[in-house]
Amino acid sequence: MLINTKEQMYTVFELQQLIEQAIPKIEYPSHPKNLYAPLTYIMNLGGKRLRPALVLITTDMFKGDIMEAMPAALAIETFHNFTLIHDDIMDNAPLRRGKLTVHEKWGTNNAILSGDVMMVEANKQLAQVDSSILKDVLNTFNATAQGVCEGQQLDMEFETRDNVSITEYIDMIRLKTAVLVGGAMKLGAIIAKASPEHATHIYDFGENLGIAFQLQDDILDVYGDPEKFGKQVGGDIKSNKKTFLLLSLQQRLSSEDQLVLEDQFTNETASKVQNVTNLYNQYQIKELATAEMQHYLAKAFDALDQIDIPEIQKAQLVQLANELMNRER
Amino acid sequence: MLINTKEQMYTVFELQQLIEQAIPKIEYPSHPKNLYAPLTYIMNLGGKRLRPALVLITTDMFKGDIMEAMPAALAIETFHNFTLIHDDIMDNAPLRRGKLTVHEKWGTNNAILSGDVMMVEANKQLAQVDSSILKDVLNTFNATAQGVCEGQQLDMEFETRDNVSITEYIDMIRLKTAVLVGGAMKLGAIIAKASPEHATHIYDFGENLGIAFQLQDDILDVYGDPEKFGKQVGGDIKSNKKTFLLLSLQQRLSSEDQLVLEDQFTNETASKVQNVTNLYNQYQIKELATAEMQHYLAKAFDALDQIDIPEIQKAQLVQLANELMNRER
Repeated sequence: MLINTKEQMYTVFELQQLIEQAIPKIEYPSHPKNLYAPLTYIMNLGGKRLRPALVLITTDMFKGDIMEAMPAALAIETFHNFTLIHDDIMDNAPLRRGKLTVHEKWGTNNAILSGDVMMVEANKQLAQVDSSILKDVLNTFNATAQGVCEGQQLDMEFETRDNVSITEYIDMIRLKTAVLVGGAMKLGAIIAKASPEHATHIYDFGENLGIAFQLQDDILDVYGDPEKFGKQVGGDIKSNKKTFLLLSLQQRLSSEDQLVLEDQFTNETASKVQNVTNLYNQYQIKELATAEMQHYLAKAFDALDQIDIPEIQKAQLVQLANELMNRER
Repeated sequence: MLINTKEQMYTVFELQQLIEQAIPKIEYPSHPKNLYAPLTYIMNLGGKRLRPALVLITTDMFKGDIMEAMPAALAIETFHNFTLIHDDIMDNAPLRRGKLTVHEKWGTNNAILSGDVMMVEANKQLAQVDSSILKDVLNTFNATAQGVCEGQQLDMEFETRDNVSITEYIDMIRLKTAVLVGGAMKLGAIIAKASPEHATHIYDFGENLGIAFQLQDDILDVYGDPEKFGKQVGGDIKSNKKTFLLLSLQQRLSSEDQLVLEDQFTNETASKVQNVTNLYNQYQIKELATAEMQHYLAKAFDALDQIDIPEIQKAQLVQLANELMNRER
C-alpha cells in the first residue's frame, strides 16, 4: 500500500498522479443515468487537481498517511466541481475546458439537480474519514463550503454594482477562491493529526496563497502570454469584469481618463483590450497588482514560517507555491 | 430544560410547538444579505413541520433526549426547504404556500445559490450531534439526501415519458417523498441509541408511511373536499401529471375510452377536471388507489409491530399516522 514509510516526501507530481488514478475509480450510482452522468463528465474534464493535491501534500508534510487523506481530497475536488456546474449556470457559460458545460449538455434543471447530488457525493466521501476526527473535518469542510457560496454571491452582486471597493474585492476573492485552498490544507493537517495551531497556520498559508493566486490570475488575464495562457487574453477586459486591476485603475484615473475608460465599457471593437491595457500601463497598474500579490504571498510564507517542523518537510509545498506564482497560465 | 424525565410521552403537538419555537431562533449569517434572506423567508413560510416532528417523536419513542435530537430535526427541515427552493426553480412555480417562491422574489441565480448554502446549513446543524453517533447520522442523512435528488430527477423525467409503469411511479414517490420520512425517523432512532434493528424497522415504517401519504395526496387531488384541501382540487388533472390514478387508468382503459382521455390532455376548458374524474369513477380508480395506499400503510404497521417496546411508547406515532391517513388536506 501507499503508506509513506519512506523518508522522502511524495512529490507534487506523484500526489497529482494518485488523484488522477483515483478519480476515474469513483463509483456513482448508475440510475437515474442523467442525474449521475454529469458527475462523471465534469470530474473527468481534467484540470490540475491542485485542490485535492494540497490536501495530500499537507497530510504528507505533517507525516500523516496520505491514503487516509484521499477521501477528503476527493471530497474537495468533488465539491469544487459541483460549484463549477452551478457557477456555469449562473454565468450562462457555454464552455468549460473547451467542452460543453453541464447545463448546455443536459439542460439547466438537470444541471441544478446533478450539482445538488454532487454536493451529497462530496459529503459521502468526507464521511469516510476516521470517526475520531470526523467532527473537526466536517466543521472545516462546512465552513469552507459556506465561504465559497458567499464568495460566488458577492461576485454576482458586484457585476451590477459600481462602487465596489478594493477591500470588498479582496474579501470576495478570499471567499470565492482562497477559502477552499486554505480549507483543503486544513483538512490535510487535521487528518495528519497536526496540532490545532499548525492547522490554523497552514490554513492561513493556504488562504493567503489563494488570494495571491487569484490576483495573479487577474494580472495574467491582461499580461499573460497568449501562447501559454489557457484562457483568451483580455477576457476580463472584454466583459468589463471588476478585477483588482480595473478597480485600482478607477481609483487612480484623472477625470479626463475616466471618460476614456467609460467609453471603452461600451466599445465592442477589437481595440478595446489594447485601449484598456494602455490605461493600465499608463497608471502602472501591473506593478501595483504585483505588489499586492507579493504582499499576500509574503503573508502566506509568514504563516508557513510559524510551523515548527523541519524545513525539508515543507519543501514540496514551497516548490508548488513558487511554481504557481511563476506560472504563465 | 426539556429532557424527558416524565413518564408520559410528548404529544405530537408539543413537539411541533418545540420546533416552531426553534426555527425562528436559527441564526444565519447576516452577510451577504441576499444570500441568507431566502433561508429565513422559506423557513418561516409555515407548514406542518411533520418531518422534523418525526425525528423528535422517534427519539421520544425510544426514550431518548428530544433536545439532543433537535439539531437533526432542524437539519431535516432545513434540507427539506432547500429542496423546495430548487424544485420550485425546476417546476417554474410562482407561488409556495401562497407567497412568492424564492426565485420569483430574488431571481433564479440567487435562488440556486441560496439553496446551495442552505444545504450547507443543514450539514452544519447535523454536525452538532454527539461525536459517538456522528458517522451513523451522516450516512443516514446522506443516503436520504441522495434519494431525494434521485426522486426529483425521476419526477422530471416522467414528465416527458409516456411509458411510465406503476412500479416506476411507486419507486419515484418512494425516493422523492418517502425516503425523507424514513430517514427522519431513522435519525431519531440513532440519536436515541436504539438498536440497528429498531432503526431499520422504524425506517421501513417511515418509508412505507411516506408512500401511503403520497398516494393519498394523489387521491385527495381529485377527491378532496375543495373547502378543506389546501391546494386547488384537480391540479394534477389540469397539468396532466402522471399520478398513480392516471397511470392506473391508462392501464385499464378500453381503446375507445383511451381516445376520450387523450382528448382531455389538450382540453383547456373547465370541463377537463370533471371529464377525467368521470373516467376515474367509471374505472373505479379511487378504490384501486385506496387499496394501494392501504397496502403500504399495512406494510408500515407491520414494520412497527417488529419493534419490541411497550405499545404505549408507540402511541403518539400511531396516532399521528392515523391522523395523516384520515386527513382531508
